[in-house]
Amino acid sequence: MEVVYVELGARRYPVYVGAGCLREIGTRLVETGCGARMAVVTNSTVAELYLTPMLASLRAAGLEPTPVRIPDGEEHKNLAWLSHVYDGLVAAGIERGGAVVALGGGVVGDLAAFAAATYLRGIPCVQVPTTLLAQVDSSIGGKTGINHIAGKNLIGAFVQPRFVLADVDTLSTLPPREFTAGLAEVIKYGVILDPGLFTLLEDRLADVQRLDRDMLTCVVRACCAIKASVVAEDETEGGLRAILNFGHTVAHALESLTGYTRYLHGEAVAIGMVAAARVSRRLGLCSESDVQRIRALLERSGLPTEIPAELRGDPLARAMRTDKKTRDGAIKFVCLEAIGKTRFERLTCEDIVEHL
Amino acid sequence: MEVVYVELGARRYPVYVGAGCLREIGTRLVETGCGARMAVVTNSTVAELYLTPMLASLRAAGLEPTPVRIPDGEEHKNLAWLSHVYDGLVAAGIERGGAVVALGGGVVGDLAAFAAATYLRGIPCVQVPTTLLAQVDSSIGGKTGINHIAGKNLIGAFVQPRFVLADVDTLSTLPPREFTAGLAEVIKYGVILDPGLFTLLEDRLADVQRLDRDMLTCVVRACCAIKASVVAEDETEGGLRAILNFGHTVAHALESLTGYTRYLHGEAVAIGMVAAARVSRRLGLCSESDVQRIRALLERSGLPTEIPAELRGDPLARAMRTDKKTRDGAIKFVCLEAIGKTRFERLTCEDIVEHL
Repeated sequence: MEVVYVELGARRYPVYVGAGCLREIGTRLVETGCGARMAVVTNSTVAELYLTPMLASLRAAGLEPTPVRIPDGEEHKNLAWLSHVYDGLVAAGIERGGAVVALGGGVVGDLAAFAAATYLRGIPCVQVPTTLLAQVDSSIGGKTGINHIAGKNLIGAFVQPRFVLADVDTLSTLPPREFTAGLAEVIKYGVILDPGLFTLLEDRLADVQRLDRDMLTCVVRACCAIKASVVAEDETEGGLRAILNFGHTVAHALESLTGYTRYLHGEAVAIGMVAAARVSRRLGLCSESDVQRIRALLERSGLPTEIPAELRGDPLARAMRTDKKTRDGAIKFVCLEAIGKTRFERLTCEDIVEHL
Repeated sequence: MEVVYVELGARRYPVYVGAGCLREIGTRLVETGCGARMAVVTNSTVAELYLTPMLASLRAAGLEPTPVRIPDGEEHKNLAWLSHVYDGLVAAGIERGGAVVALGGGVVGDLAAFAAATYLRGIPCVQVPTTLLAQVDSSIGGKTGINHIAGKNLIGAFVQPRFVLADVDTLSTLPPREFTAGLAEVIKYGVILDPGLFTLLEDRLADVQRLDRDMLTCVVRACCAIKASVVAEDETEGGLRAILNFGHTVAHALESLTGYTRYLHGEAVAIGMVAAARVSRRLGLCSESDVQRIRALLERSGLPTEIPAELRGDPLARAMRTDKKTRDGAIKFVCLEAIGKTRFERLTCEDIVEHL
């Protein structure tokens, strides 16, 4: 098992990455000194696969877990299901010494962590991500929250977990399309900050795709280390952390234009990264070969890379203009300088669309 | 106008206390460097009295306030009205640079501050308390939250305001019973930490009761200074801050036993303080004359000091046993050593009831 730390002073915490480490959750929790009573928040799909071993590990460590279930799906990341989780915490008798374990993907992780952050003015939360996207991104960094009719993650808080435990074995039960979508964010880390990771992915993509345990551990660990270092430098997204939004301006616009049904987030990010690389190229910031390497790796991964013709131009510009990160019509756009190197540019939505 | 600071390092903030200082809210807000757009969360009763001058001051300072109203009353401090406030913030177009101004008593202050703490993962909040209780207690210290069917303030967060502005002139419109209830918490500060304040109240109670502006400013400022120093030493109630719970063990039991309808919080605290003083006396920790001075000042203030006969004994012990601060049947009880001096004792509910 590998460990990387998110260095946040007194709130420093470990991210454990390994194959089969789920069964160590009980031991790890006892180490934190939390009380015995805890709630395991999960969804119906994940519960069927991993709740039994999770509860066994917790009970073997002398802990008293109570499962709290929410339905599977982003549409349940809302106030109503948050309220259901609070009810579950109360029913489980969770008190100040208690804790919340989030077992699942990003929806479970965000909602459960927000519930923990606001129950009794905050009890500890532990993240056990079971999707590639959650393992390399959403479980680390303390962004918690729920959606509101007016916007995704409109309600939330920055509260760091006590630790993250990413068992790459859980990726074997992920639907292939979701695994592939997660790869987009993995590739993103290589593009923005780690040329070595990018090259490794180019060379060993087949091993990643056949879920080689050592390769997955290596790749997930590398991504967690990058995310951890970015979060440690800029916990509340005052500056540097925005680098993680590479490809996300166009991605969010595409997701919004298609009602969040056509693309998985990672698929939209794949298209967005190629778009961001092209904009950077047209601005003379990076080389055409960098654009092509990114496009090629995404395509080999099975990800889309082109904006559908019917969404190009005006519709895309309009969608970008309503993005909450747009200020005075301009966007702090993450541009590429080279594989592993980016810079921020203030661009208007028109600038972006025109350079695609 | 007087100013005291809550010393919390980078999150240090001022508490302004004065007669007529409400009209300075616009200037104070501009000083903080918040954006122009802000929501003023208030209730229907307070809105009628103070929303117009508040909006005038904000607009005169070049700000763009939008009022968001909730109904008056503790029963509205819940998820449904929190959701209504989120809707109001969205409708007002509040973005990351925006802010929330809480204009009202404890319910408005707690709910509005929790909404601010969780909207877009946290935007600044400013407290403008208009009740005595809120001015001397709830507006300072960052406790925010809402009630849940299973418990008061069960959902919440510790997030400090940018500043607190307490205009003692607003106390003139407070129903006399509410003002008197607030006096219980004022007296509590004298009892637990400030013998000079206690003596001042003994000597000048009449001036306080006729709402002499200088006397109110002096007394509210003294309370705010005590609260500020306690919060600065123990922001999240790890230890010292529990001193503020003097009288509250019995008070919470009485409120719970009477369904939160018979007593205002301060009235229950008045009874609870005399009870705590008596328990301390019977344990040989303080003198009988201290108990009598406390009882006498509370009575002169017009506050109740005796537990009704029908609630004594078993009902009270049972209610205390279900208090969320009770652990393993024992309570960290704040005992009196002398006026201005307390200590913690671990007592069982039976110990307490028996010594009343």
